[in-house]
Amino acid sequence: MKERVIADMRVIPLGTATPSVSPYIAACLDVLKEAKDISYQITGMGTIIEGPLARVLELAQKMHEVPFTKGAQRVVTLISIDDRRDKPATAESKVKAVS
Amino acid sequence: MKERVIADMRVIPLGTATPSVSPYIAACLDVLKEAKDISYQITGMGTIIEGPLARVLELAQKMHEVPFTKGAQRVVTLISIDDRRDKPATAESKVKAVS
Amino acid sequence: MKERVIADMRVIPLGTATPSVSPYIAACLDVLKEAKDISYQITGMGTIIEGPLARVLELAQKMHEVPFTKGAQRVVTLISIDDRRDKPATAESKVKAVS
Amino acid sequence: MKERVIADMRVIPLGTATPSVSPYIAACLDVLKEAKDISYQITGMGTIIEGPLARVLELAQKMHEVPFTKGAQRVVTLISIDDRRDKPATAESKVKAVS
Repeated sequence: MKERVIADMRVIPLGTATPSVSPYIAACLDVLKEAKDISYQITGMGTIIEGPLARVLELAQKMHEVPFTKGAQRVVTLISIDDRRDKPATAESKVKAVS
Repeated sequence: MKERVIADMRVIPLGTATPSVSPYIAACLDVLKEAKDISYQITGMGTIIEGPLARVLELAQKMHEVPFTKGAQRVVTLISIDDRRDKPATAESKVKAVS
Repeated sequence: MKERVIADMRVIPLGTATPSVSPYIAACLDVLKEAKDISYQITGMGTIIEGPLARVLELAQKMHEVPFTKGAQRVVTLISIDDRRDKPATAESKVKAVS
Repeated sequence: MKERVIADMRVIPLGTATPSVSPYIAACLDVLKEAKDISYQITGMGTIIEGPLARVLELAQKMHEVPFTKGAQRVVTLISIDDRRDKPATAESKVKAVS
């Protein structure tokens, strides 16, 4: 399973004191900063990660745990995986193909 | 309802002849090109749209119809809305807040 | 556009005082209770709605507004639409087809 | 990490010959049938799984692989996780709380 997938991840802590959750998200992103084997890009609605599926899910689980370590008691995490095996695809090539 | 929301939209035609759906998506994006009152950004996993909620949903419906006009017989469309009313937020300000 | 779509809707208020958001969700569902022209089913992860697409999106917008009227300052709403036009499909027929 | 999460999973094969993807989904569900340690429920828009997070993600990866073994060349998989740690929650208790 060396194929790289393109994934979109969103971690949403619930029941935080204020509507702003950026401190939680910044801490989640530290998990990706330390993961040298994958590439990622922060968007206005989540984080796009490119890497092998097993690794992406491993990082997803780590990111999901982060808000709990910072006091959150409920976390909703959304993961979307786009896995194409007929030809190589990257987030960049996908954007180009439709632009 | 003048508030602007940040939304992520993804249109997925099913049962197409090949795994590539970019011609359908490019046609969906024409709907946004013609909508001068909203701003959008194409990502590797969808399109981020910023505008009033009613307008975003109107455009979502139009985009959802496009693959049918091009021969698709089933379309799955995913819409995520992030609507914050305690202070202004944009896709750009959200990325900055966590980077 | 008389076709009925199957949709999944999830309304997530952020920055609420506690992790429990059920009072907000119960109020959102009142919108559906009053909508006699559509059918819906509450699941452990959202609400499945069946009806014409324009109507579903209209109700989605109304449901999205509800938590703001109850004090929430940020709401994330997720809408998934499955629209099949080659043959009739319902939530029930879809479950049967895979079981 | 003995906590049980509630997750919603959807596997969408792209580029299949026809709009119907139920044979693929039925095969994905075989993965869950064999997993005696988790509980699941098929809905009109996906499958709700309850179990420990690591196990849910392990099963998600297995389910995601299934359509490729049946000829699909592209698979989009959507995973939503609701993880509440202040008190026990199940799909059933969540439905009751809002009904």
